[in-house]
Amino acid sequence: MKIIEAIHEMHHAAEDLRQQGKRIAVVPTMGYLHDGHLSLIRVAKQHADVVITTIFVNPTQFGPNEDFTKYPRDLDRDKKLAASVESDILFVPSAEAMYPELYRTYVIVEQLSEVLEGKSRPSHFRGVTTVVTKLFNITRPHVAVFGQKDAQQAIVINQMVKDLNVDIEIIVVPIVREHDGLAMSSRNLYLSATERMQSTVLFRSLQLAEELIDRGERQSSGIISEMTKLITSQPSARIDYISLTEPATLQEVSTLCSGKTVLISLAVWIGTTRLIDNILKVIP
Amino acid sequence: MKIIEAIHEMHHAAEDLRQQGKRIAVVPTMGYLHDGHLSLIRVAKQHADVVITTIFVNPTQFGPNEDFTKYPRDLDRDKKLAASVESDILFVPSAEAMYPELYRTYVIVEQLSEVLEGKSRPSHFRGVTTVVTKLFNITRPHVAVFGQKDAQQAIVINQMVKDLNVDIEIIVVPIVREHDGLAMSSRNLYLSATERMQSTVLFRSLQLAEELIDRGERQSSGIISEMTKLITSQPSARIDYISLTEPATLQEVSTLCSGKTVLISLAVWIGTTRLIDNILKVIP
Repeated sequence: MKIIEAIHEMHHAAEDLRQQGKRIAVVPTMGYLHDGHLSLIRVAKQHADVVITTIFVNPTQFGPNEDFTKYPRDLDRDKKLAASVESDILFVPSAEAMYPELYRTYVIVEQLSEVLEGKSRPSHFRGVTTVVTKLFNITRPHVAVFGQKDAQQAIVINQMVKDLNVDIEIIVVPIVREHDGLAMSSRNLYLSATERMQSTVLFRSLQLAEELIDRGERQSSGIISEMTKLITSQPSARIDYISLTEPATLQEVSTLCSGKTVLISLAVWIGTTRLIDNILKVIP
Repeated sequence: MKIIEAIHEMHHAAEDLRQQGKRIAVVPTMGYLHDGHLSLIRVAKQHADVVITTIFVNPTQFGPNEDFTKYPRDLDRDKKLAASVESDILFVPSAEAMYPELYRTYVIVEQLSEVLEGKSRPSHFRGVTTVVTKLFNITRPHVAVFGQKDAQQAIVINQMVKDLNVDIEIIVVPIVREHDGLAMSSRNLYLSATERMQSTVLFRSLQLAEELIDRGERQSSGIISEMTKLITSQPSARIDYISLTEPATLQEVSTLCSGKTVLISLAVWIGTTRLIDNILKVIP
């Protein structure tokens, strides 16, 4: 596996690969790789000749009081893990090169960026769409792979790609979970042992929602109320949001309609750690 | 000359040309071509194997009370003119295809977009950078050619290209003027005969600024004051702004320094028509 740090070197390598007729996949990550990321790289391998995994803890997608500085970083570990699933290139740019002095350009996706995660984290998606645009231009992929864990991110990026006529196929890969259902996340590292136990309540509340729907509940308010009860039974848990939305537009759905798919998503603080999770549920 | 209307057809044509190893230049225009545009196409020819001229009156770069609906359009005339300077492709997308329902993505360049033209036309550059990004992604050029007439536009696009790691060379071509010095513009069409005569005051005021600098004036305030006197001597003229700025940052310059280049730019209403002009002056 080749490690590339310089933007111009990555760009030339990508152009060379294109010239050779190779199909390129990119897997943008913030590093501290876990099995969720590795599943993205594995899927990328199936869709391309060459997989570029990018590792960049992107400052512009963190709010001023968020965990940018404490976000876990371990490049040696990431190198081994990416190599273990045969990522061909690891692109690790510096923040100084990505955002030089007098940097001024941002890509914004209106409305879709302003709800759910965007409501709690106002500049988050602007940072995501900007860095993803930059990474796309640098790595010149035919296909890009993202995780369903960040459901709204995938929706926002799909909209951006469509709107800006970006010729890249976006693939979204299912969430990888721990044995007890907790969605894999680099932020799980922040949890104490007690919090780690309580953190399973996110997925359990999503399973509860699924059960309620299967038993006939069609009012979002009823589902949210039962999920809230379950989550708040955990002393460390504080709900940021629970939301049932239409997956393409992220519009809130109040009554569930048979045959439609609903995105059930939530953000919950477990102690001082903010976790997210979601499921896509087809209404029977 | 090939005329292409469909976005996907333009995109495929551009990808085919790239596959064949052809170098592509794009000249984005709003049509109603004049000698200024034709000089852009001629320069583009010198830098590429294939020149794509785009004609699109871009709604997102017009403000709500601006001249979008009355902006002149004459595709038959444009076809002949573009063919006369050997544009290879004329790309003429529809507004519906460029901005479908639920369109949501914009590219913004902070600060540089907010001064001069951006102050008078708050959403103008957001529209420009968005449509240029889309046109770049559709036409896949190696080089893009813009006119110095829209000096700030060229500066904003250069910043965007640098910030977003867009691999396209930007060429800026000098202003083409009428015999009496008026900068060529599709909007000159709006002028009555009397206004047309008075409109030469824009360029005359720039020449006056140049003379004052050559005679030793180093205070912007002194230069602006003399330009203002000259312009307001014309009954139809109303100044929007006159500005002396540093060309890379568009920061106002109060005292001119020997060896530096200053961008002297202005926007003036002649009756109900808003005209712009500028010169780049190296301070002796």
